[in-house]
Amino acid sequence: MGIDPMDRRNFLGAAGGALLCTIGGQKVFQDKPTNVQKLAAGVKVPPKVAAANRNPGLTKAAAVTGNRKEYWIAAEQLRWNIIPANKNGKKRDQMLNQTIRKGKTTFSAYGYRPYTANWGQPLAQATIPGPLIDATVGDTVVVHFRNQVPVPVTMHPHGLFYSNEMDGAYKGYWTDPGGFVQPGREFTYVWECHEGTEGTWWYHDHGPIDPIGVYKGLFGPLLIRPKDEVKPDREFFIAFHSFLPPATGLTSGFDCVNGRSFTGNTPTFSANVGDDVAFHVYAVDDNFHTFHLHGHRWEEPDGTIVDNKTLGPGDSFKFRFIEENPGRWLYHCHVFSHLHNGMSGWYLVE
Amino acid sequence: MGIDPMDRRNFLGAAGGALLCTIGGQKVFQDKPTNVQKLAAGVKVPPKVAAANRNPGLTKAAAVTGNRKEYWIAAEQLRWNIIPANKNGKKRDQMLNQTIRKGKTTFSAYGYRPYTANWGQPLAQATIPGPLIDATVGDTVVVHFRNQVPVPVTMHPHGLFYSNEMDGAYKGYWTDPGGFVQPGREFTYVWECHEGTEGTWWYHDHGPIDPIGVYKGLFGPLLIRPKDEVKPDREFFIAFHSFLPPATGLTSGFDCVNGRSFTGNTPTFSANVGDDVAFHVYAVDDNFHTFHLHGHRWEEPDGTIVDNKTLGPGDSFKFRFIEENPGRWLYHCHVFSHLHNGMSGWYLVE
Amino acid sequence: MGIDPMDRRNFLGAAGGALLCTIGGQKVFQDKPTNVQKLAAGVKVPPKVAAANRNPGLTKAAAVTGNRKEYWIAAEQLRWNIIPANKNGKKRDQMLNQTIRKGKTTFSAYGYRPYTANWGQPLAQATIPGPLIDATVGDTVVVHFRNQVPVPVTMHPHGLFYSNEMDGAYKGYWTDPGGFVQPGREFTYVWECHEGTEGTWWYHDHGPIDPIGVYKGLFGPLLIRPKDEVKPDREFFIAFHSFLPPATGLTSGFDCVNGRSFTGNTPTFSANVGDDVAFHVYAVDDNFHTFHLHGHRWEEPDGTIVDNKTLGPGDSFKFRFIEENPGRWLYHCHVFSHLHNGMSGWYLVE
Repeated sequence: MGIDPMDRRNFLGAAGGALLCTIGGQKVFQDKPTNVQKLAAGVKVPPKVAAANRNPGLTKAAAVTGNRKEYWIAAEQLRWNIIPANKNGKKRDQMLNQTIRKGKTTFSAYGYRPYTANWGQPLAQATIPGPLIDATVGDTVVVHFRNQVPVPVTMHPHGLFYSNEMDGAYKGYWTDPGGFVQPGREFTYVWECHEGTEGTWWYHDHGPIDPIGVYKGLFGPLLIRPKDEVKPDREFFIAFHSFLPPATGLTSGFDCVNGRSFTGNTPTFSANVGDDVAFHVYAVDDNFHTFHLHGHRWEEPDGTIVDNKTLGPGDSFKFRFIEENPGRWLYHCHVFSHLHNGMSGWYLVE
Repeated sequence: MGIDPMDRRNFLGAAGGALLCTIGGQKVFQDKPTNVQKLAAGVKVPPKVAAANRNPGLTKAAAVTGNRKEYWIAAEQLRWNIIPANKNGKKRDQMLNQTIRKGKTTFSAYGYRPYTANWGQPLAQATIPGPLIDATVGDTVVVHFRNQVPVPVTMHPHGLFYSNEMDGAYKGYWTDPGGFVQPGREFTYVWECHEGTEGTWWYHDHGPIDPIGVYKGLFGPLLIRPKDEVKPDREFFIAFHSFLPPATGLTSGFDCVNGRSFTGNTPTFSANVGDDVAFHVYAVDDNFHTFHLHGHRWEEPDGTIVDNKTLGPGDSFKFRFIEENPGRWLYHCHVFSHLHNGMSGWYLVE
Repeated sequence: MGIDPMDRRNFLGAAGGALLCTIGGQKVFQDKPTNVQKLAAGVKVPPKVAAANRNPGLTKAAAVTGNRKEYWIAAEQLRWNIIPANKNGKKRDQMLNQTIRKGKTTFSAYGYRPYTANWGQPLAQATIPGPLIDATVGDTVVVHFRNQVPVPVTMHPHGLFYSNEMDGAYKGYWTDPGGFVQPGREFTYVWECHEGTEGTWWYHDHGPIDPIGVYKGLFGPLLIRPKDEVKPDREFFIAFHSFLPPATGLTSGFDCVNGRSFTGNTPTFSANVGDDVAFHVYAVDDNFHTFHLHGHRWEEPDGTIVDNKTLGPGDSFKFRFIEENPGRWLYHCHVFSHLHNGMSGWYLVE
């Protein structure tokens, strides 16, 4: 804490967060709108990327060794409303039964959008988070990625086995083509679900505008099931994240679950008594969170019983139980200021 | 970090914490005193609560299925001194052997106060934290709760099994009577210690002024013992929390252990060599902490040996060992700025 | 979050960090240079320390019960450059392939320096972090410590068994000589690697200028191997920490790995395919971090597979795997603002 209003004049700049990142050598601040496209223009095309542009034949397709699990996913621009109005035209927080006064809540976002094979047609709108990548140990995940946003972005996966070229990360001079997919270009990621990769994971942009791509919506869930898994009846995927001014151009920051803010706008999950239910939770922003679910608890892999769990940026975990408790339950981040800035939702059990 | 005094002018508002919550539609800031009673007056009485007021017979007593463990607990106002003066009239930090200059340290707090059966007489003063709820798997905990503070407050438990009506949480329109206990009213919570609920937990206000109720002192420890537990010789319950200006009206924030700040004011725990000792630790505020105990270490349920452990808001854990190391030991949060703002204490072993 | 630039004027002082500590009764702020030597002069010499000064015979050497593992380590002043220029005279961030504009990056640091037996000659320069203390269960670690910096400092270990006198911590009136080693003086710490102390730990200053000693560089890794350990082929020790203005006198804060900031300056670790590789990670500052390693994942003691792990101040953990994935990989803190303020590095596998 160290909270001492008597010391206010000494505080500025101290607590950890003014500077979010630099892009193209320019500083990006956590609370100030910025022009990402202009900043991205200042990033040099890395030599391996330029070479691949000149000679596309250089980029060899990676071998597929397991069962092929194929996706066509584009990064696209979309208008995204963090708090859509209800049918009465009001933005509401159902947890506090109040109207939300946050000013503008719609912005120009980026999202991952799934397509049918060979880019036949969209399977859905671009969404925040992106589509679930659902694989099993032994699979090889093949993601055909097309960049339709105006800056270089990528897909970087957690948990999977991938060779260095399939990392999807910007690495300055050493960047591979998959770590710097320019507007209008494509790249095919090949990721392998080796033994020892099972778990709840996520994927996200890790290109040269990192982390602004993530803060604009470029992230999604990735699941690797054990080989012998009996699928749960219900599976819920929960991203704790935030939208910040440099990514949204809005004057407010928002604490979110799956792209929305405040109970009733964030996902309302439903299950029935007797269901085998799995929750998959991951954290995507600069803050640490705790996931709490009312009326329930679960057994951790070490045998501990918990109903509240810390997770930091990049962390992910799952839990599973047989539902036995009907009601209207809250799930939320137990950091009070996150909870009260929108990081909560309903879980309804009948 | 991103600490850059050169960038000070850009920092304001960025780091995550100005706005603590809204109550009755009014914003509450982490560093500004506020009038909770006035804000609470702006919260509408939820329909199920109003109906129960009109017709108390509607609220049926929950069935008690296990061994009955019964408590009478009132929420009461109390004057609370975060740093009481010693017999020489000085407020001291024994860790640094210095006098504390923090201005006023006494405020109008809320605390849970235990009574004998049927409100016969107080068992103790209202305290921060509240009384231990001590149960065993198989028990049904029955808490007769009376609200004697001037705003609606509740008791919301972690870990236990409870039906939706026994949640003790404000849920806007859908709030049950137990989630909005008005001044002068009572509610009986029935919580069940099913198999799979054993652990170190805590309870706290989760009513319409959340989290100000917690920040004013409405929290306490809750323990569910395994059925076959051999009780330790010593059991210590440790809440890492803070007092903030909107809840205290004071101009300083305080990092605390069990309601007090700075070594010598926070609890001094004692044990003897050979004792079977259990520590129960939980975190109650908006910050993340690490619990560190000098001269000791413990085995985690996964077999790892640690002497320092991260815990976030709402988390709780315990550890247990046979004492073998005499001395004057410090326990503290290892976040240096928390440690040095009061979050530490003595553990004395003879 | 609670980020709301509309509310900027209310934010100052709220988020948790202005005041880092007090030394000699004077406040030290996280973002303001301070004069540590002057502050330390305001700290009274504790009575047991004064008595030992008057009569050195009072301090009895501790018994050594295990295999003796002996170190001679001095705390020394050194000029430390957080971002050394490359051969072209430029300070570079290889991750973003950009020149770093942070102003001055060299300061008057403190470091632990290893010597040969009986202070024969230095084994190396003083470094940040200090030398590895490498022991095995059953060993007794004996550290002959000499303070050559101008303020009282100490060595306080995590994980090991030590008697109260060997704690190395300032405890106000009750401070033992090992908790307040004055400039020019020596103290011999005796720490025991009992059964149940195996793990990855660290040591650090815990004297009267705590935590400024740590922020000036006084910390290092400490390893206690299980008795039957087959040593890995490669062992990497990684401290996530920061340098702050009150300790450096610089106008910027830096997020660091092992004393350096930004990829290419932080350690570049190397291994070969087939190597048995161990990573040891610990966190040393006021922030929470997550450790992420690209292209790899590991099994936690509870059987969970992770590639990203939360650690708070004082926490430490290790993981170990057989290397199978060649390439240029990033390791980094997944808190984006830490990553982009320097907390990342290369791991090269051939």
